[in-house]
Amino acid sequence: MEIEIATIGGYEEVGRQMTAVRAGDDIVVFDMGLNLSKVLIHDDVRTEQMHSLDLIDMGAIPDDRVMSDLQGDVKAIVPTHGHLDHIGAISKLAHRYDAPIVAAPFTIELVKDEIQDENKFNTENDLVTMEAGETMPIGDSGELDLEFVNVTHSIIDAINPVLHTPEGAVVYGLDKRMDHTPVIGDPIDMDRFREIGREGEGVLCYIEDCTNANKKGRTPSESVARDRLKDVMYSLEDYDGGIVATTFSSHIARVKSLVEFARDIGRKPILLGRSMEKYSGAASRMDGVDFPDVEMYGRRQGIERTFQRIMNEGKGNFLPVVTGHQGEPRAMLTRMGRAETPYELDEGDKVIFSATVIPEPTNEGQRYQSENLLGMQGARIYDDVHVSGHLSREGHYQMLQALQPQNVIPAHQNMKGFSGYVELAGNQGYKLGRDLHVTTNGNVIQLVEE
Amino acid sequence: MEIEIATIGGYEEVGRQMTAVRAGDDIVVFDMGLNLSKVLIHDDVRTEQMHSLDLIDMGAIPDDRVMSDLQGDVKAIVPTHGHLDHIGAISKLAHRYDAPIVAAPFTIELVKDEIQDENKFNTENDLVTMEAGETMPIGDSGELDLEFVNVTHSIIDAINPVLHTPEGAVVYGLDKRMDHTPVIGDPIDMDRFREIGREGEGVLCYIEDCTNANKKGRTPSESVARDRLKDVMYSLEDYDGGIVATTFSSHIARVKSLVEFARDIGRKPILLGRSMEKYSGAASRMDGVDFPDVEMYGRRQGIERTFQRIMNEGKGNFLPVVTGHQGEPRAMLTRMGRAETPYELDEGDKVIFSATVIPEPTNEGQRYQSENLLGMQGARIYDDVHVSGHLSREGHYQMLQALQPQNVIPAHQNMKGFSGYVELAGNQGYKLGRDLHVTTNGNVIQLVEE
Amino acid sequence: MEIEIATIGGYEEVGRQMTAVRAGDDIVVFDMGLNLSKVLIHDDVRTEQMHSLDLIDMGAIPDDRVMSDLQGDVKAIVPTHGHLDHIGAISKLAHRYDAPIVAAPFTIELVKDEIQDENKFNTENDLVTMEAGETMPIGDSGELDLEFVNVTHSIIDAINPVLHTPEGAVVYGLDKRMDHTPVIGDPIDMDRFREIGREGEGVLCYIEDCTNANKKGRTPSESVARDRLKDVMYSLEDYDGGIVATTFSSHIARVKSLVEFARDIGRKPILLGRSMEKYSGAASRMDGVDFPDVEMYGRRQGIERTFQRIMNEGKGNFLPVVTGHQGEPRAMLTRMGRAETPYELDEGDKVIFSATVIPEPTNEGQRYQSENLLGMQGARIYDDVHVSGHLSREGHYQMLQALQPQNVIPAHQNMKGFSGYVELAGNQGYKLGRDLHVTTNGNVIQLVEE
Amino acid sequence: MEIEIATIGGYEEVGRQMTAVRAGDDIVVFDMGLNLSKVLIHDDVRTEQMHSLDLIDMGAIPDDRVMSDLQGDVKAIVPTHGHLDHIGAISKLAHRYDAPIVAAPFTIELVKDEIQDENKFNTENDLVTMEAGETMPIGDSGELDLEFVNVTHSIIDAINPVLHTPEGAVVYGLDKRMDHTPVIGDPIDMDRFREIGREGEGVLCYIEDCTNANKKGRTPSESVARDRLKDVMYSLEDYDGGIVATTFSSHIARVKSLVEFARDIGRKPILLGRSMEKYSGAASRMDGVDFPDVEMYGRRQGIERTFQRIMNEGKGNFLPVVTGHQGEPRAMLTRMGRAETPYELDEGDKVIFSATVIPEPTNEGQRYQSENLLGMQGARIYDDVHVSGHLSREGHYQMLQALQPQNVIPAHQNMKGFSGYVELAGNQGYKLGRDLHVTTNGNVIQLVEE
Repeated sequence: MEIEIATIGGYEEVGRQMTAVRAGDDIVVFDMGLNLSKVLIHDDVRTEQMHSLDLIDMGAIPDDRVMSDLQGDVKAIVPTHGHLDHIGAISKLAHRYDAPIVAAPFTIELVKDEIQDENKFNTENDLVTMEAGETMPIGDSGELDLEFVNVTHSIIDAINPVLHTPEGAVVYGLDKRMDHTPVIGDPIDMDRFREIGREGEGVLCYIEDCTNANKKGRTPSESVARDRLKDVMYSLEDYDGGIVATTFSSHIARVKSLVEFARDIGRKPILLGRSMEKYSGAASRMDGVDFPDVEMYGRRQGIERTFQRIMNEGKGNFLPVVTGHQGEPRAMLTRMGRAETPYELDEGDKVIFSATVIPEPTNEGQRYQSENLLGMQGARIYDDVHVSGHLSREGHYQMLQALQPQNVIPAHQNMKGFSGYVELAGNQGYKLGRDLHVTTNGNVIQLVEE
Repeated sequence: MEIEIATIGGYEEVGRQMTAVRAGDDIVVFDMGLNLSKVLIHDDVRTEQMHSLDLIDMGAIPDDRVMSDLQGDVKAIVPTHGHLDHIGAISKLAHRYDAPIVAAPFTIELVKDEIQDENKFNTENDLVTMEAGETMPIGDSGELDLEFVNVTHSIIDAINPVLHTPEGAVVYGLDKRMDHTPVIGDPIDMDRFREIGREGEGVLCYIEDCTNANKKGRTPSESVARDRLKDVMYSLEDYDGGIVATTFSSHIARVKSLVEFARDIGRKPILLGRSMEKYSGAASRMDGVDFPDVEMYGRRQGIERTFQRIMNEGKGNFLPVVTGHQGEPRAMLTRMGRAETPYELDEGDKVIFSATVIPEPTNEGQRYQSENLLGMQGARIYDDVHVSGHLSREGHYQMLQALQPQNVIPAHQNMKGFSGYVELAGNQGYKLGRDLHVTTNGNVIQLVEE
Repeated sequence: MEIEIATIGGYEEVGRQMTAVRAGDDIVVFDMGLNLSKVLIHDDVRTEQMHSLDLIDMGAIPDDRVMSDLQGDVKAIVPTHGHLDHIGAISKLAHRYDAPIVAAPFTIELVKDEIQDENKFNTENDLVTMEAGETMPIGDSGELDLEFVNVTHSIIDAINPVLHTPEGAVVYGLDKRMDHTPVIGDPIDMDRFREIGREGEGVLCYIEDCTNANKKGRTPSESVARDRLKDVMYSLEDYDGGIVATTFSSHIARVKSLVEFARDIGRKPILLGRSMEKYSGAASRMDGVDFPDVEMYGRRQGIERTFQRIMNEGKGNFLPVVTGHQGEPRAMLTRMGRAETPYELDEGDKVIFSATVIPEPTNEGQRYQSENLLGMQGARIYDDVHVSGHLSREGHYQMLQALQPQNVIPAHQNMKGFSGYVELAGNQGYKLGRDLHVTTNGNVIQLVEE
Repeated sequence: MEIEIATIGGYEEVGRQMTAVRAGDDIVVFDMGLNLSKVLIHDDVRTEQMHSLDLIDMGAIPDDRVMSDLQGDVKAIVPTHGHLDHIGAISKLAHRYDAPIVAAPFTIELVKDEIQDENKFNTENDLVTMEAGETMPIGDSGELDLEFVNVTHSIIDAINPVLHTPEGAVVYGLDKRMDHTPVIGDPIDMDRFREIGREGEGVLCYIEDCTNANKKGRTPSESVARDRLKDVMYSLEDYDGGIVATTFSSHIARVKSLVEFARDIGRKPILLGRSMEKYSGAASRMDGVDFPDVEMYGRRQGIERTFQRIMNEGKGNFLPVVTGHQGEPRAMLTRMGRAETPYELDEGDKVIFSATVIPEPTNEGQRYQSENLLGMQGARIYDDVHVSGHLSREGHYQMLQALQPQNVIPAHQNMKGFSGYVELAGNQGYKLGRDLHVTTNGNVIQLVEE
């Protein structure tokens, strides 16, 4: 069976991920993401009203015109998890394909939000939920199966989809870290990966998340981030003034830890901000997600009223968990730094950034400005209480050991970001131009000829 | 009562710490340390045979000639803990003073080693053991007391000595982090610090460990380092080849964690290297230290024989814990990288650096070389599984809140290293030239006039 | 005669410089500057309408309330050169003092602009011009003289004022590099500095520009920057599309080089932007400044019309020199990157940044964004064609050798910035707390008692 | 005609360059270099006595076993210039090929040295000199010509060889910067490159020097380095103590500048050290090289005697130019820092590093140590008085504009080093896997099929 991989987006950047696998006449699309930074560099762009082609020209969404080079029909669109760089272009592109969107439950929930917020296009694709560990047949040949393997990432319900073909498995490895003690959900299913590596034709191709491929060692488990957060928050137990925390809104496990430790040190946690409510709201509505019951407000009025209540009842009784971990100029925390909210910071109040700055000068400038403004109000800063959600070098090494793939394709980075992975794979015997495919957006790689 | 502080060593560097406090006619000396890098930059220097003045000229030990400016008699020499930069000059300088050496039990043990290894001088000062929490009278006036407050650092039995005078307490704050969950021993005694801040005349002067004063946030607890180490080691549970670890030999808590996790994943830990045996040997001989029973070898022959045994019985059954975390050219791990030991590294074997590189180009170059050599043997590197033993900015902030000192003196750094502390203290209302004393080696600061 | 130095502003930052020297009953004030970054961090602040106290609270201008601690009368306000961090607070503070403003001709010209733009206060102090090399008597004692020694900096007409007192000279050393081949004006007058070091009582006190005190080696001459610029511009001689340059508007020598090389490669230079017109306009109106005759436009309408003309006549015939070297969001170059001006960038057009990014995350973020926007229009970037205007370590060493001052005071930095200077001075035999005065804003240092 | 490129060495590192071009039955080999760092990481390795295969295993010289995959005969071995990473393996590999070594005169001179120093192998290939601008026929087909185009680099007589084939030109672009005002020799021949880009079939393939591909802007001319050096040395004209300089021994233009400026400031230059004598000696023996007449000593005895003479006649009369710019532990300058030579440094003496540290932790550590040792002797350090010999991004852009190659192959770096070039070429319309060939050592790229 002829097998081709079209590397559509996210092969020159972290953002706007999209990859298509053609096996015979059937095509499966993995991810349709948005590169938010390409939107934000422009003033006053409102993506929900924009046409796909304009967003493609901006580099904000994948240029899926290469799809016309593939001889087959799309049978499924499969986002791996609910981050915007993986689902943010669905509302702009999915309607062009007559295929269901197949994803894990939490991801489907977030895809629904995306579709609802869209003004320009109607997305009417079927939404099909599949759990990690499950498999479904794909296409008309009767020879293809789609399996979801459980992985661990900075959002719940992340999976790695595997397309089983007669030529071997195609494992789409975005995004994950190798976590044996996640705070929510099951550990990464390394046993299943090892099994896939050994069974049948083995792994024909592995597409890998290279976000951290230039980092040495092992990315720690979320339990280590939790321990660090606990260490910080317990150390503030005696403080009776204001404590404010911020983190990635979609990082449900982290929000859970913040909520629990707030209660441990005698404070009532409240989640504030539109995206805080969106993600945590979705998590709390899900069955089977171990997310605590907690107050949350997403709209301006509710937020203002809550801040007022906190000021009235005493800042020492609360832990507001707010948006603004990257110093975004319009986010809640930055507005607190500008004294634009009813919450008044006092000398000695604490601000916990349970997040790293995404290393890019724009973010670094904004975060610096935000910390400066908070400092001018007297706040003490606890930064970088965080661990990454992406594999480092030794995780990549272990994945290669487990899967023993015939071909590897580095993804989710630019060329500089791939470089550490190429070196690693080279040392493991892979060779550029033979079975190690360094590629860019818009290429088609033929793995098996007819 | 007249009070003066002589800042003798360690005020222009991290290393060769020495500070004297004169209260009336009585003097207490805190620390007598060695700056090892000033020795190592020269080829073939053997300190144990060198005269003090030559070592002073090299900048290796404190220039204690300023002591003659102080009108009084030394009544005690008080090392805070057993690191070389705090005790390494005792064998060169203590014999000049007719005073006992007063220290916590583990520190006394290591001081004995120093004295024994010395060839040039005879140190006959009394060695007096005092536990954290205890107090003894000092001098003839009947007005001075020396108290040991328990603190937490990267070595066990670290204390902060406090000299209680009629004018208030002088708190010598080197070296510590604020750890509420250390792996061995008690948490830092913040309650006692707060009490000292409030009682009597309060704190006349606080001398602070500025090693990490330019780092934001909070230094995590040793329990976080332990969690990270556990995460790494448990993730290697299935590996049946060689795993080797290295850390600071004096870091007893870390060695304990390594030993325990080795056993958890089915490996026999063995400590190898002269300094490994020295520190862990001392720890295992101490009463009341919760250190596990473990094999250790310090001499060449025992080490070679052990490596041979490991090769014979199977590398997969052992975890050698060796010296060489900074890539020191003659250390065990570097020699393993050069294939100069019977232990043969295979492709895929793991090396765990439970240590950071001390940030200085010489170390960085040597460590890079060591990792390269290990990599050429096939080793996979897990680096930086570590947390620092020193307070960061928010720890400093909390100490100032607890002690409310009338004067502060930054120490244990150079001017650049002090800068973050000066900024912090300035924001807390201290003023250079009034109550914030930025100083250099060889100065005398008069706090209370006659 | 009693001599005191009040270190009022610019001792915790680069910005808002102000220092007062009291000699007997007479006081001379050196510099009254603005810290622009403290203004810009706030949205929509218009300084020209603000009250001094509000600007002091913001940290934007020096807190001159310490002046009331000095027993004497201000006899002169002496800005050293025309940069905002040295003259930007004159319009807010000078009116409080009954004293003339004494400065070099170009500086006086820029002070006039400042006074004119001010809305809140009337500044009616006399403006007195004095050239480098000249001396005037100061005060009523008949014992004080003010001399201007010629120095070299990134603006023309920079001088170091020297207050000659019976106790020795006070040399105010801000801002300079040691340039023997400046592009405009005379070389730094090292002979005179050496003379001052030897004559009479020698130098009582030297206040030094520590901006680059942590940089090794020697800051190159402006002639080296000119050579680098020439190398870049001549290499583009064959290009017939658009070339745009940007630099510090106040950097008259650099603008001159840009103008001359533009003509050398067959392009008409035009200066565009409000501050371009302000500084270059002032320079071209000055007698004795070797500044070329060149078109310039400062107002929106003239700029738009000029861009239109350039597009009509062909971009290949022009070199627009515009504002925006730090990526300021509203500057001309950034607007060109956003395609908001009539000047259309084409693929391959060149943008020359004859400036470094001032190393601070906000600037770095903005500059990155600006380069990205320009790159999206197709521009090729030549960055960092520049040398600093401030002394590096070896310049400081040479100044100490020349002046042999009895006391030194590092200035124009924060504590971290001072650290390299303190180390250097320490190695030259100065001692903190004796003759090396590390200080902060708002201190008074007594050098000679009554 | 079938055309293949074998990328043999220097495609995963800077070092051990070797590339073969097969055109029909004829093969031309470009460069045979040594990766010195792979030798130095081992203790006590003497390459001149080692067998090729051992050096290949160490990664020190190119693994030329891939040559057996090429169907043809080697007709010429063409080193581009005399640096070791381009000629250092000739004495180990050239004897295997029955082909002349064709190079520019200075390169031939240095190749002779290499062959002479070799103990293991006899290299009896003909040595053929060809000047920049000349062309010779290659092979038996009568269809191939080899041309040398003049380029500019950090060594004299650098050329870019061009193999003219019926399918277009293969331009081998290592190593160069785009220098229009070199200090010795002619400017880079951009006119000829543009001509080659337009004539006949144009350029089939361009192999590019990516050393600095991640650096923005333009690498300055050697004349800018000369200006910087002049600025430093003239600023020391009044100093009457010792001044010492160091630079790359092979950097003839830089040594010439050092010699000339030494004389300008009244000092006698003397070159000291084995490699100083080797390269400058060769240059001074060449016809047509504008190298000044200067004393030089390469052997221990001559050097010691010279240092003694300098001490006797007064250090102020001399400028020793010595080896040791990277802080190499055994080099002359490092030995001066250890006070192991008769030349005694005094407080205030100057050391000029007319070189950058090659950015790699081992070098950085050694250089740091060397500067420390020199500083302990009282020396003042002028570092980094240098410009690189390699193109930056805008040079690469201009080369692509000039040559308009059908295929490009980045070389002289690892994957991380290529990344900037891949991005640049991608923006210019090249595509990975089509006409942009990112490759590794040991690959064969087929450009034209039979």
